[in-house]
Amino acid sequence: MTATAAPASAAIPFHFGLYPAGPLDGITDVPGVMVGHLTKVEGTSIRTGATAILPNADPWVTKVAAAALAFNGNGEMTGSQWVNEAGFLETPIVLTDTLDIGRADDGVISWMMLRHPEIGVRDTVPLPVVAECDDQFLNDITARAVSANDVVHLLDSAKPGQFARGGVGAGTGMTAFSFKGGIGSASRVLPKKLGGYTVGVLVNDNTSGGGTRRVLTIDGVHVGARLLNEYKPFIPKHAAMHGRPAYGSIIITIATNAPLDSRQLHALALRAGLGMGRAGLYSAEGSGDLFIAFSTGETFQRTPSYDIEPPHTPILEDEDTINALYLATVEATEGAIYDALFNGKTMTGKNGATVYGLPVDRVMQMLKQR
Amino acid sequence: MTATAAPASAAIPFHFGLYPAGPLDGITDVPGVMVGHLTKVEGTSIRTGATAILPNADPWVTKVAAAALAFNGNGEMTGSQWVNEAGFLETPIVLTDTLDIGRADDGVISWMMLRHPEIGVRDTVPLPVVAECDDQFLNDITARAVSANDVVHLLDSAKPGQFARGGVGAGTGMTAFSFKGGIGSASRVLPKKLGGYTVGVLVNDNTSGGGTRRVLTIDGVHVGARLLNEYKPFIPKHAAMHGRPAYGSIIITIATNAPLDSRQLHALALRAGLGMGRAGLYSAEGSGDLFIAFSTGETFQRTPSYDIEPPHTPILEDEDTINALYLATVEATEGAIYDALFNGKTMTGKNGATVYGLPVDRVMQMLKQR
Amino acid sequence: MTATAAPASAAIPFHFGLYPAGPLDGITDVPGVMVGHLTKVEGTSIRTGATAILPNADPWVTKVAAAALAFNGNGEMTGSQWVNEAGFLETPIVLTDTLDIGRADDGVISWMMLRHPEIGVRDTVPLPVVAECDDQFLNDITARAVSANDVVHLLDSAKPGQFARGGVGAGTGMTAFSFKGGIGSASRVLPKKLGGYTVGVLVNDNTSGGGTRRVLTIDGVHVGARLLNEYKPFIPKHAAMHGRPAYGSIIITIATNAPLDSRQLHALALRAGLGMGRAGLYSAEGSGDLFIAFSTGETFQRTPSYDIEPPHTPILEDEDTINALYLATVEATEGAIYDALFNGKTMTGKNGATVYGLPVDRVMQMLKQR
Amino acid sequence: MTATAAPASAAIPFHFGLYPAGPLDGITDVPGVMVGHLTKVEGTSIRTGATAILPNADPWVTKVAAAALAFNGNGEMTGSQWVNEAGFLETPIVLTDTLDIGRADDGVISWMMLRHPEIGVRDTVPLPVVAECDDQFLNDITARAVSANDVVHLLDSAKPGQFARGGVGAGTGMTAFSFKGGIGSASRVLPKKLGGYTVGVLVNDNTSGGGTRRVLTIDGVHVGARLLNEYKPFIPKHAAMHGRPAYGSIIITIATNAPLDSRQLHALALRAGLGMGRAGLYSAEGSGDLFIAFSTGETFQRTPSYDIEPPHTPILEDEDTINALYLATVEATEGAIYDALFNGKTMTGKNGATVYGLPVDRVMQMLKQR
Repeated sequence: MTATAAPASAAIPFHFGLYPAGPLDGITDVPGVMVGHLTKVEGTSIRTGATAILPNADPWVTKVAAAALAFNGNGEMTGSQWVNEAGFLETPIVLTDTLDIGRADDGVISWMMLRHPEIGVRDTVPLPVVAECDDQFLNDITARAVSANDVVHLLDSAKPGQFARGGVGAGTGMTAFSFKGGIGSASRVLPKKLGGYTVGVLVNDNTSGGGTRRVLTIDGVHVGARLLNEYKPFIPKHAAMHGRPAYGSIIITIATNAPLDSRQLHALALRAGLGMGRAGLYSAEGSGDLFIAFSTGETFQRTPSYDIEPPHTPILEDEDTINALYLATVEATEGAIYDALFNGKTMTGKNGATVYGLPVDRVMQMLKQR
Repeated sequence: MTATAAPASAAIPFHFGLYPAGPLDGITDVPGVMVGHLTKVEGTSIRTGATAILPNADPWVTKVAAAALAFNGNGEMTGSQWVNEAGFLETPIVLTDTLDIGRADDGVISWMMLRHPEIGVRDTVPLPVVAECDDQFLNDITARAVSANDVVHLLDSAKPGQFARGGVGAGTGMTAFSFKGGIGSASRVLPKKLGGYTVGVLVNDNTSGGGTRRVLTIDGVHVGARLLNEYKPFIPKHAAMHGRPAYGSIIITIATNAPLDSRQLHALALRAGLGMGRAGLYSAEGSGDLFIAFSTGETFQRTPSYDIEPPHTPILEDEDTINALYLATVEATEGAIYDALFNGKTMTGKNGATVYGLPVDRVMQMLKQR
Repeated sequence: MTATAAPASAAIPFHFGLYPAGPLDGITDVPGVMVGHLTKVEGTSIRTGATAILPNADPWVTKVAAAALAFNGNGEMTGSQWVNEAGFLETPIVLTDTLDIGRADDGVISWMMLRHPEIGVRDTVPLPVVAECDDQFLNDITARAVSANDVVHLLDSAKPGQFARGGVGAGTGMTAFSFKGGIGSASRVLPKKLGGYTVGVLVNDNTSGGGTRRVLTIDGVHVGARLLNEYKPFIPKHAAMHGRPAYGSIIITIATNAPLDSRQLHALALRAGLGMGRAGLYSAEGSGDLFIAFSTGETFQRTPSYDIEPPHTPILEDEDTINALYLATVEATEGAIYDALFNGKTMTGKNGATVYGLPVDRVMQMLKQR
Repeated sequence: MTATAAPASAAIPFHFGLYPAGPLDGITDVPGVMVGHLTKVEGTSIRTGATAILPNADPWVTKVAAAALAFNGNGEMTGSQWVNEAGFLETPIVLTDTLDIGRADDGVISWMMLRHPEIGVRDTVPLPVVAECDDQFLNDITARAVSANDVVHLLDSAKPGQFARGGVGAGTGMTAFSFKGGIGSASRVLPKKLGGYTVGVLVNDNTSGGGTRRVLTIDGVHVGARLLNEYKPFIPKHAAMHGRPAYGSIIITIATNAPLDSRQLHALALRAGLGMGRAGLYSAEGSGDLFIAFSTGETFQRTPSYDIEPPHTPILEDEDTINALYLATVEATEGAIYDALFNGKTMTGKNGATVYGLPVDRVMQMLKQR
């Protein structure tokens, strides 16, 4: 842990682990990757949104090797079956709240048809990747505030470069470790002798529920146990009546430019679970922990006649490089989880439900003191 | 094969296999199971719809043990991750066209919220099971003709008892073996000494593409090879330009009242693939062959405090009974595929695309002559 | 079905399906593939053996892309976890009886260490692929008649070209459809415009049990139902006391020279299940139906410094070719199952247990008469 | 972390986490579970052995619900396919070195046949669970020092109660984090209001390789980074020539008396990966990370007529209890990994290869100082 002055960017104000972060300490450090947010904060009870991640500007044409993995299937990531059968991703990835999955799916299809009018006419049809988290604690999820049209605009807005973290986009209504959660991101860059590849991770962290504060560990420091009785969420009476406390979910997207195929990306995605473990998470029953990994370095090209060209770049087999990619994935996942917390700002939502932002100064103090 | 006069019901006019069919020779022979169709045939180019299958009137309250399986993942069955994690199904199953998945998902959520207003308020949120087939050959799929509201009405209309087969509901625009495909169903009833359980199967058969006519086998007779150059679909110029011929999909739902858990239902679902094999299918690359199996005999009950009671019925372990259920699943799947064909009526759709109904009399002649 | 005079080779005396068989109608039609048998018929009760399949003469050096699949996991195929993680096969495949798996594993290791003395010294260690069937009906399986040393000799004996089928090698004590089962093989060759690739399949068919005679279907003819009360096995008193009738297993190896990776070979392997379906099988609970597929066209090379070079041949993406490979796999599996039966000769074993060979002339008559 | 005087037992001398350990802080805290070790330290180069874990004295009769999981399939756990298909474990679990898997399998079969002479005669045949780690760094693995007979004696020796940890049994030649590894175990006991269930974990930790020292984290303290340049293994010239450094493996067995079925035990097993993450592991490519979980609270009984009775205890559905079991599994896995290190004693083996035991006093100092 090297504490430094927090930069203007959203990255966390300390470094940990073996590999350096990329310039943005985010998933967009992987060249070509684009991110966009749509945030809906309206009145006292709408606290939701959507976030888009694109492997490139037109994944329908330049498909990227990919694998999807349900670490804990208490959630939804549409499109997973096709990603795993095909071995590639050919649509954007959209994150949103649970009850707006259908609308987001509809929006992705509209956006793709606008770009590729032969879809469903001469060309095949897309199966969008849409993943959800349940934000009903802060957000009136029953309002279904994200429309298909919103998602079309969202996808238009996605771009490379820095992007906001914390309670934005699909992260707007998220709660993590009983603090404010949401969008977090981080990256790691391998040494040149190991190919110099980048691994970038973006999480939507909703690993909420009273039970998980206690386990929160930041770079080894048991921060959650020390803050157990402070910054407790205000739980309105209605929510307290939940028979099943909402343990939330975490959706993890892993991007790399290392040439890996679907089988290898499945292994890479699984390492995100080890990063979750470092942060103290135990993948509670109610948590849909769904991962998707893709490689911009191993692409399938759609031809003008709607055929598909296989990748021509041999996959990596060097064990040292693959191990470094694994460790980079663990570190970037861990970092992205911290990032969501460090960028979380106290939020009040539906019925006055309130979740506090992580007290960053106190946490930094704890990290420095050891 | 015992040829009989075709009954008023939609069941195929002959019997094959070891076990007798139930009274309806359909999935609704499993007590409690409900089916509904919404058919959209409008103008010259809308040929689509949706079909609902419910394990009971309120699966949110009485969840049924279930398993989902991507035999060939070139398709989408939303909700699969949760079904497999939970080991139960707690929503209706809706089938529709590929570009209306999102709208159907949205409609299922609306319908469930109407019945359970505490969803998303005090109660958790549903992850609907929606599966698709691509009907772009006959249907203007880009019109996205199935609305969320349509699906609400569809779900209201589902009921036990006999239901239509062939080009109805989600089967409206389907093509199978280059004949008219769509909804087919069949059932098998075990002898009393093996528990007397019922297995019912419903397929939406879109196993289209020029290449599959040849393999069509009906109760062992190579019907497709004999009809190779007859009843050929009329392929409009635009569709002929497809770089990738649409090989279609088959969505298979297996219901039983035998007390099986998710692990066992996964095994049962896999046997549907053996039924596909009997009909000659080889699960072509472009075919999304997605299966879901559920048991009304092994249920999880939602309590008024939103907790879940586990099943209290021990699972089956008797090997003879399990084998009989396996064989019944193979036979009912095979029968359901035939049923879709036997009930297929010649249809003309988008741009004059035409698919012929199976020439039932000629096929029955072939079956009798051997 | 084109009936012809039975050739001197072991291939079945008729052709079916879309694609022609290779010259040997066996797995060794795939260039480089080698097969060997070790047969143990001793006294009145030893009826067992082992069979080896090698993708090439030295798979430790030239590893082949591969995938293993438990269609029905009531059995054992060691090495599967590594094959699926690595995406390649680097050992021979050995088939034997259930209680000799350990000895066969031990023998494979000895054979590999003899060829590669740096194994376990400077080089890593192999995880052999050994799969089993239970031959206790005909064989005194408790004698564990196959030794590690036998397997060393077996592997030395493996060679390209024609090989024996039926009750030889691991097939010695097999029973299938209550007829004599064992080793069967078949192949299919794609047209030149689809790459001219070969798919070869070898099965060890032990799909026994009284219940499966009835379902046996040969090229669509319900042969089993017609022979239900003839050629019944003689079941000695001891075996009749089995609480669980032995439903046996089928181990299926699929070889191709088409350049497919592990993900694609998993899909190819799954199509073997559809071939089982055509033959009437329903994968009874007691049957361990374990498949492995490999491609000699997609290889990983071990370097002198024990590193691994990834394949440099792009994988196939042409849909027509992939579909042809799928159908070829279905047909070759179906053919291999028939081949095991057609080469089965009546055998008497332990305690007088007797299984009859398929009455080939009568079956051919049935095939011709339709 | 609560530092206490190290007890006479092998348990680690501090506590961490939410739940208390059981009396033995080991897998045998789960009632009925038995462990045995066979240690082979002979001459200068034999450093190997085997360890047995039994869910009860006769798992062939009292089968326990179980699931096997390849987190990283670069290894072997035989019997996994059957465990997952059946949903139960019916054999002992044996751990040994990679080249003795076959002999161990053979020994388990002998041991079971001695107890159940009807195996392979009137009764079915077992598919033993044998898992391996590669100990070639310290051990002359090519000697294959563990015989089938050794394993028969090992199984006879297994018993309930305390057992040795560290470099014993299968752990004899293990290296972890470049320290001496081997057998570690830990347990956690749930509060009475959550059923009072116990979770016990036993690991064979061989997560070796130069690269993993750095990541070693003990209860949040980055111990490995602080000891990076000390206690370095002595690597003889021959071993340094490995093209692929041996990154080793970890085999994890999770036992509980909570009534969980195979699907739930699969989820439980996956949480072991989160415990690995806490210790800093990233599941390097060369590491076969294979898990098996079983429940003594959900049993299948073999009847005298060789039939199987299904469990009559309903599975757990209470979310709080399941979450506690998940967290207990994470903690017990983490603890077992520490336990292997804390009990590791410096060992010299083949060609003088030397691995140092963790400097426990220094580590305890680090833990106390924070």
